[in-house]
Amino acid sequence: MRRDMEVSELEQIDKVVKGWLRESRDNVLRKIDTRLTVNTKTSRRDLVTNIDKENEKFLVAKIREFEPEAKILGEEGFGDKIESTKGRVWIVDPIDGTMNFVKQRNHFAIMIALYQDGQGELGYVLDVIGNRLLSGGPQLGVFDNGVALAPVEDTPLANGLIGLSGPMVLNNDFNMVDIAEKSLGMRIYGSAGIDIISVLRGELVGYISYLKPWDFGAGKILAETVGLKMTTIDGQPLGMLSSTAVLLATRNAHRDILTIVNKD
Amino acid sequence: MRRDMEVSELEQIDKVVKGWLRESRDNVLRKIDTRLTVNTKTSRRDLVTNIDKENEKFLVAKIREFEPEAKILGEEGFGDKIESTKGRVWIVDPIDGTMNFVKQRNHFAIMIALYQDGQGELGYVLDVIGNRLLSGGPQLGVFDNGVALAPVEDTPLANGLIGLSGPMVLNNDFNMVDIAEKSLGMRIYGSAGIDIISVLRGELVGYISYLKPWDFGAGKILAETVGLKMTTIDGQPLGMLSSTAVLLATRNAHRDILTIVNKD
Repeated sequence: MRRDMEVSELEQIDKVVKGWLRESRDNVLRKIDTRLTVNTKTSRRDLVTNIDKENEKFLVAKIREFEPEAKILGEEGFGDKIESTKGRVWIVDPIDGTMNFVKQRNHFAIMIALYQDGQGELGYVLDVIGNRLLSGGPQLGVFDNGVALAPVEDTPLANGLIGLSGPMVLNNDFNMVDIAEKSLGMRIYGSAGIDIISVLRGELVGYISYLKPWDFGAGKILAETVGLKMTTIDGQPLGMLSSTAVLLATRNAHRDILTIVNKD
Repeated sequence: MRRDMEVSELEQIDKVVKGWLRESRDNVLRKIDTRLTVNTKTSRRDLVTNIDKENEKFLVAKIREFEPEAKILGEEGFGDKIESTKGRVWIVDPIDGTMNFVKQRNHFAIMIALYQDGQGELGYVLDVIGNRLLSGGPQLGVFDNGVALAPVEDTPLANGLIGLSGPMVLNNDFNMVDIAEKSLGMRIYGSAGIDIISVLRGELVGYISYLKPWDFGAGKILAETVGLKMTTIDGQPLGMLSSTAVLLATRNAHRDILTIVNKD
């Protein structure tokens, strides 16, 4: 049986995490003009840099100091091996959009999520260069740089811009070309965090990409809190530890997109 | 025979135009949260708002006051009918990326160009929300918010991100899918001005889209000043009054892209 976290505890954690993020952002900005050590992971487009690693180590150390028993899932592997959603789990993406980070020094994010028994409690998505933090959770509400987020309009696909994954469009996975054509236009930003912020702020009616837990963990908490839907591309519930094609959208756009995905 | 403009005159005009842009940006920001009057032009994706029109009227009036005999080409038609590149011609795009402006209130630009006998003299591309102005020309150099722009590296396509037009990708015009696959990734931002700024700053190695004179007039001046190439998609010179598929890129990426465009 899941135990709800207390609001007062969440508020305390929220202050602490925001402090880590400020420090983490300062660290990244201080090193952003230095020569990066860039390595490929699974392909020439899947990169990791020394700053990804240093920032994950920094955030993992902060979490361990704050909550020594917590389990931590980190993109670069400095956390724990997580096989169950039980208890308290932190999810860390030290640099989301590493290709943008390497090639643009812009349009990347730092993301942190806190789950309790598989339930999202707190999420943080920080656009580092834009200096914009979306934060909060179901008990605290969602904030855009500390100000309560404006309600997200339930815009249908045909009346909005849609954020997509470039490779999914090029391969026409799940009828992605039809989805783009039904919308008012596709946008490709190259960072889940930047796309998630855009959906939360109503700049996009949805976002579709292959994602891992650190890519969507924080965004799912924020999105569901404000009434957006975040599921697998075929509309199934998105498990906290899934790696799959993810569909985030307004309720109307979510329904419109599922209709296109399910076409023959 | 073309008469070169004097540097001292260009410096004086530069100061004046920057003043217009500051005022124009303030006007747009003051009205950005008001209800827009949105009309479609050639399709449901080709929009114009009251603010596009008001801003063009504002800029055209400023130019007429400053230089009563100048010819002005404006996207929304408040300038003159231009049939020759002779003499001094101003080109104005009051809101570039109107779809982004309407749906995002973000990621749009104001652009101004000054040509003399078909030769680019001064170009201005202003990211309104990002508050970033790329400005200058062949005699003054190019500036990024007043600071001399860093030299643009001559990165090949395979080692960079490429900005593309969404519709061109969906239709695979000119082998656009191959171009995207050869690059490290495609980005779709939905505003020529935003893409041009990204190429000038080295965040993209190139940009391809169908453009009109007000979409590329300012960018072409800035791009050529810093050694980038801006031509038609088949590598031909881009006339000041052309409406065509445009390829802006580093010299290396330009050559790489032409090879793909010209494939059978």
